[in-house]
Amino acid sequence: MKSITSRDNPLYKELKLLATSSQARRKAGRTLLDGVHLCEVYLDQVGPPSLCVISESARQLVEVDALLADCGSRRVQCIMLPDALYHAVSQVENGVGVLFVVDTPTVGMPSRLDRSAVLLDNLQDPGNMGSILRSAAAAGIEQVFCSKGTVFAWSPKVLRAGMGAHFLLNIFENVDLEALLDGAGVPVLATSSHASQRIFDVDLRRPVAWLFGHEGQGVSPDLLARATHQVVIPHLGKVESLNVAASAAVCFFEQLRQKSAH
Amino acid sequence: MKSITSRDNPLYKELKLLATSSQARRKAGRTLLDGVHLCEVYLDQVGPPSLCVISESARQLVEVDALLADCGSRRVQCIMLPDALYHAVSQVENGVGVLFVVDTPTVGMPSRLDRSAVLLDNLQDPGNMGSILRSAAAAGIEQVFCSKGTVFAWSPKVLRAGMGAHFLLNIFENVDLEALLDGAGVPVLATSSHASQRIFDVDLRRPVAWLFGHEGQGVSPDLLARATHQVVIPHLGKVESLNVAASAAVCFFEQLRQKSAH
Repeated sequence: MKSITSRDNPLYKELKLLATSSQARRKAGRTLLDGVHLCEVYLDQVGPPSLCVISESARQLVEVDALLADCGSRRVQCIMLPDALYHAVSQVENGVGVLFVVDTPTVGMPSRLDRSAVLLDNLQDPGNMGSILRSAAAAGIEQVFCSKGTVFAWSPKVLRAGMGAHFLLNIFENVDLEALLDGAGVPVLATSSHASQRIFDVDLRRPVAWLFGHEGQGVSPDLLARATHQVVIPHLGKVESLNVAASAAVCFFEQLRQKSAH
Repeated sequence: MKSITSRDNPLYKELKLLATSSQARRKAGRTLLDGVHLCEVYLDQVGPPSLCVISESARQLVEVDALLADCGSRRVQCIMLPDALYHAVSQVENGVGVLFVVDTPTVGMPSRLDRSAVLLDNLQDPGNMGSILRSAAAAGIEQVFCSKGTVFAWSPKVLRAGMGAHFLLNIFENVDLEALLDGAGVPVLATSSHASQRIFDVDLRRPVAWLFGHEGQGVSPDLLARATHQVVIPHLGKVESLNVAASAAVCFFEQLRQKSAH
């Protein structure tokens, strides 16, 4: 395995840029998968990565051994970094010291919204994004459409929170959600604490698109006006609203419950 | 309003310690509420804080005006800090520049688990903790019991994610969950991807205690053995599990759905 020990090494500089700049990741069409679990899921679901990077300490770890053996048998290029250099390219606290460099999947935008999907309007928090992707994949949803202002789905933090859900979904970014909704072939549901129709009382046995918005401001008024249903998750007490990822999970699994009950 | 401009001011040093040290917060029995929303909820639900702190820039903001007027009419001590000093005591990115110093509520531990509750075993992530508290309060649950290793509920990050739910709940920390479960007077449900009973098929119209664990390792085996039910949130596809806060939301609102359907 090749070792890189200089911060001036061109490959190391490229890694550093991918690790720290969302713009660089978008431009290069590549991102970093940090941690054994994500790397294993990638190998299993997608295939060999462009590059495997480990820290010197990680080489001692049993769980990394198996991953390296798997990479070796698939002829994946592997490099080792001193711990200090590794930590500068890893955004994960207490990570195990292994990451993959992978190409961000590019999928052709469908001509029409015609199946169960999630639409994210200006969602900001990487943890929320990752949790929503994970819940969507677990509930059998296949498509996720993100507006221009939404956090980049392929950032290391979102990938980490998604726990591999990214590889089970088709994620479309920089989407004009207004145009998508104007041509939608399925009902579009947005949650709102001001709505009167309870989510439990809506027939969810058909495909629907779920629309979620910014953590503080919710879905923009122009999009909300295009939703076919505004629904409320009933609340008790004085709480104003749920966290957006919690709301999404309640919606997706209420749909799954209704589908499996009939 | 008093201004503090020196980093050596004793009150400022105390603030800095509260902002940066979980141990100091626990020892002092005090914490910081950061942001207009949390401060408003506190004034509304609990009463006047010990101290109100604002940044110089915040003084210009309309939304802070109303809060300061409210504090003034309740004779709350207010101090102003230069922005640089303020930002060193605020953990909130892009915050508005206002925080309260408040006493952490102390509530007597109940003798027995005898109503709907949430039990958290070694939960680590502040965002997950805040989301779970928010969902629990919204679903009408009143008690939350946290094991010793669980993230401190009154840390600024958890408070921020909880969006005021803390003030609607009784939160007990450093709880011996094994002892609590041994004497439980309600069914105790733990989610597990290995369980065969679907959460949708369990009768949740009665009070139950929900047990959730560490983000990676789940509930410890000793506690899991004490749960009366292990239940699964059905998944489709190849996703192994949901985010713990997403799971909790699904559980709490499935219970609310069942209760309100009958």
